[in-house]
Amino acid sequence: MLSETEIIALIRDMSPDYVPGAEVPIGDDAAAFHFTGGLVLLTTDSIFEGVHFNVPPFHISDVGWKAMAAGVSDIAAMGGEPSCALLSLAFSGPPDEGEVRSLIGGVLEMLSSCNCALIGGDVCRSPKGLALTVTIAGTPPPGGPVLRSGAKEGDIIGITGSAGESTAGLYILQRKSDELRARYPRVVEAHLRPRPRVKAGALLASCGATAMEDVSDGLAADLRHICDESRLGCEIEERLVPLEDDLRALAGEVGEDPLNWALSGGEDYELLFTAPPGRFDEAVRCLVDHGIQGCRLGVTRSAGEGRFLVKESGELLNLEGVGYDHFA
Amino acid sequence: MLSETEIIALIRDMSPDYVPGAEVPIGDDAAAFHFTGGLVLLTTDSIFEGVHFNVPPFHISDVGWKAMAAGVSDIAAMGGEPSCALLSLAFSGPPDEGEVRSLIGGVLEMLSSCNCALIGGDVCRSPKGLALTVTIAGTPPPGGPVLRSGAKEGDIIGITGSAGESTAGLYILQRKSDELRARYPRVVEAHLRPRPRVKAGALLASCGATAMEDVSDGLAADLRHICDESRLGCEIEERLVPLEDDLRALAGEVGEDPLNWALSGGEDYELLFTAPPGRFDEAVRCLVDHGIQGCRLGVTRSAGEGRFLVKESGELLNLEGVGYDHFA
Repeated sequence: MLSETEIIALIRDMSPDYVPGAEVPIGDDAAAFHFTGGLVLLTTDSIFEGVHFNVPPFHISDVGWKAMAAGVSDIAAMGGEPSCALLSLAFSGPPDEGEVRSLIGGVLEMLSSCNCALIGGDVCRSPKGLALTVTIAGTPPPGGPVLRSGAKEGDIIGITGSAGESTAGLYILQRKSDELRARYPRVVEAHLRPRPRVKAGALLASCGATAMEDVSDGLAADLRHICDESRLGCEIEERLVPLEDDLRALAGEVGEDPLNWALSGGEDYELLFTAPPGRFDEAVRCLVDHGIQGCRLGVTRSAGEGRFLVKESGELLNLEGVGYDHFA
Repeated sequence: MLSETEIIALIRDMSPDYVPGAEVPIGDDAAAFHFTGGLVLLTTDSIFEGVHFNVPPFHISDVGWKAMAAGVSDIAAMGGEPSCALLSLAFSGPPDEGEVRSLIGGVLEMLSSCNCALIGGDVCRSPKGLALTVTIAGTPPPGGPVLRSGAKEGDIIGITGSAGESTAGLYILQRKSDELRARYPRVVEAHLRPRPRVKAGALLASCGATAMEDVSDGLAADLRHICDESRLGCEIEERLVPLEDDLRALAGEVGEDPLNWALSGGEDYELLFTAPPGRFDEAVRCLVDHGIQGCRLGVTRSAGEGRFLVKESGELLNLEGVGYDHFA
């Protein structure tokens, strides 16, 4: 079992000795980081055992990965580059060394995949379960951060990658089916180790995206956020929602609606974006040229026209009230 | 009862419309802040209901205050100025509007007392009780941040203000004594609404402080941190530890040792600092000229000489193992 001081010493020991830009070693009162530009992007996200994850099915290294991925994704959703991270870590009792090593291993693995450094944090006791709060600081794209509020009426709505996999992965994990897990490994991985779209965010920022957000509360809820902030309505089409074949296969097998997974499920960490009609195709080409899938979902409308999905049957589904709210 | 979206809308509503330096309104994926220099100080701290506070005796606005004060104090302990704050807020169930208003009221009150702005954050559900994680970003003093590692052998050790009050305040609150609370209001206030030493930190940084740390784990533990990072020993004197008259009176009345409160109790948020013998008096004068108490505690020694307090009886008290560790 490790003391608070030993936990911090271990984290420092596991981190690289030299981090470009970081001026203060882990363990001082605050961290310090050199930013080249004047504008710094900052985001914070918490995840709690029993609410956002359980161990198992999560391996403790997945928890470290996922906490960091949520923060990095927020920076990606502005078109920014993550620079450095702080981790506030709370255990309900003294952890053993293996537990801390594994957790921090997942943290460092995620961060090194996007050139981001762990530069500080805090360790304390929680009343129940493991709790992680991640702060990520980053730099905005050259043209400034892409906000949720920048969409204009008539802009095309697009999305990177595909939707609903994280929720489908959670479905498999909750049912504790090793058999489904073995047959749908990519879907489970999407839930345990999501990959934030840092490169795609930067590309979209440079190719005319007017608004952007990461899919963390589900496609419907996140699209509403953009519409709320941009004071718009929207119309998206069921046939355009990018659902992978294995997601459809799994849904068919277990009798679930894959569209519902995509609209209501969160944590896909894909990017939802808007671009003017004259620039949308260029934006998607820009993604595809870098090996990233991207497609059209629909179009923004005036606020008075509401927020709808046109089903393949032609029926309209109102997007209000669909999606995840922690307290709703 | 408020939904997640309503909580965020309320926080945005309670915050000032215009914040100099902040470029993105509360509620987007990440916040963005303009820093004039290249180096940014960053710190994060979590507090949990049931571990760090209970409501009552804390009023919920005190919780907001105290969470922010802990982060601001970390920046002060580098000699820095806090610039902006993020708050990750977790409730075990949907909060009512009055609760959120009161909590955020305490947050904004603390922040406005040190010209710091709330610019972003996160709202989610916790498995048990209220949890707050605060991130503060700030600017370093002109000569660079004052680290724990900068003390040299023979430097004089000093402290701002007085020690032990926060723990004495906790003692009164835990005993639920309205009578003691009425007679020792300043002591209780020190626990509920600590005032970080932002001005003192900046002054000390400009007046030759070689190492600095805020007293959050108790004088003994925090002094050990400076000694560990600077690879030194130390000798402090009991007769020099600044104990207020009302702290001594309370301790006498309830049969507790006030020195123990000072050495082992945390959360005073005073600054512990070192300065070369030739500059120490100037540093204290610098504080006193600005109405801030400051005094000498002892001196740093070589690492081999250990860490001791000389009691008034002449007896030596080993400072190893004294103080707060979340898991020890």
